[in-house]
Amino acid sequence: MNESGKPRSPDVVWHHATVTRERREKLQGHRGVVLWFTGLPSSGKSTIAHAVEERLHQTRCRTIVLDGDNIRHGLCGDLGFSAHDREENIRRIGEVAKLFVEGGTVVLTAFVSPFRRDRERARGLLLHGDFLEIHCRCPVEVCEQRDPKGHYQRAKEGQLKDFTGVSAPYEEPSDPELALDTARLSIEESVEKMLTLLRDRGVIR
Amino acid sequence: MNESGKPRSPDVVWHHATVTRERREKLQGHRGVVLWFTGLPSSGKSTIAHAVEERLHQTRCRTIVLDGDNIRHGLCGDLGFSAHDREENIRRIGEVAKLFVEGGTVVLTAFVSPFRRDRERARGLLLHGDFLEIHCRCPVEVCEQRDPKGHYQRAKEGQLKDFTGVSAPYEEPSDPELALDTARLSIEESVEKMLTLLRDRGVIR
Repeated sequence: MNESGKPRSPDVVWHHATVTRERREKLQGHRGVVLWFTGLPSSGKSTIAHAVEERLHQTRCRTIVLDGDNIRHGLCGDLGFSAHDREENIRRIGEVAKLFVEGGTVVLTAFVSPFRRDRERARGLLLHGDFLEIHCRCPVEVCEQRDPKGHYQRAKEGQLKDFTGVSAPYEEPSDPELALDTARLSIEESVEKMLTLLRDRGVIR
Repeated sequence: MNESGKPRSPDVVWHHATVTRERREKLQGHRGVVLWFTGLPSSGKSTIAHAVEERLHQTRCRTIVLDGDNIRHGLCGDLGFSAHDREENIRRIGEVAKLFVEGGTVVLTAFVSPFRRDRERARGLLLHGDFLEIHCRCPVEVCEQRDPKGHYQRAKEGQLKDFTGVSAPYEEPSDPELALDTARLSIEESVEKMLTLLRDRGVIR
């Protein structure tokens, strides 16, 4: 067997991929893409990512959510919270997202990812149109009220260092593909906006 | 937002995954699994992985091949070839493979992965039955003859250090799920053995 489908002599060796992203996408009927959610802690990133995923799955889309639950204890379990490690964390997430896009998957990443430079670097790994930045825009006071794990409170008491929104900066996206006012919109409304974006960008039909 | 997933009024917020591996697998009609190819350089790992992928794709399976081409220049682009870095390389590949299995994908990894301990660690990340070790068993003399990039020659001339099979050890799997004698078998025969394994293990029908 060889790539061109010609007969092979005994020891012809090839190892290039024949299953391409394009073939996978054709099989599935939708494109691969990264939906990069960014925003303050408790701004709704994971919630909306999972709600969008549910809707996409119901229409037979291939999806994966990358978030703290499956990344921080796994691939990035060796990283702490130093400036270097935070940057490396985002870099690896970008690289993994790229692999999933190659696999034809809609990848939803839900990380604070507070620094513009890190997000731009992740964007730079992907082709134009394969990286859609979604800003979960929510006043810090509202995030603080939600705060399920009491992180804001602990940060204010000085127990959590470098906590984004309290003791560390959050750099808002200057030109995200979509901004969701998550203090004002219901989850359903946010999901609808996301699906409209995906249709507009030709990710889904 | 609350963690327990209970509804709360007025703006019900949850962020747990509802799209599970099981739902994805049901949608697709096959299981996620890692096929971990291991063997000397030029023993046929990538070749057989890609040939198996082609066959699986033709039956509508979701697949991805992880190999040097898409890992060493991306996710592991920061790593060199020290003992630590080689170990970390395999660790990350195992973690990424785990994410793809969660996504319901048949992941084919094609790395020399010469050390038993590293492979066992990757196996340990996954549930029993989700990690199938495939040993591409091939005499070093045959690998050397194939050697498309002239690596064996360069290693023998001392230009490549710590080259597995020449100047670095390869630890054979003691109990792989499948051993393929790639010097003797045609690619087609190896692919058939792989598909039989996948059917026997309930990965595909």
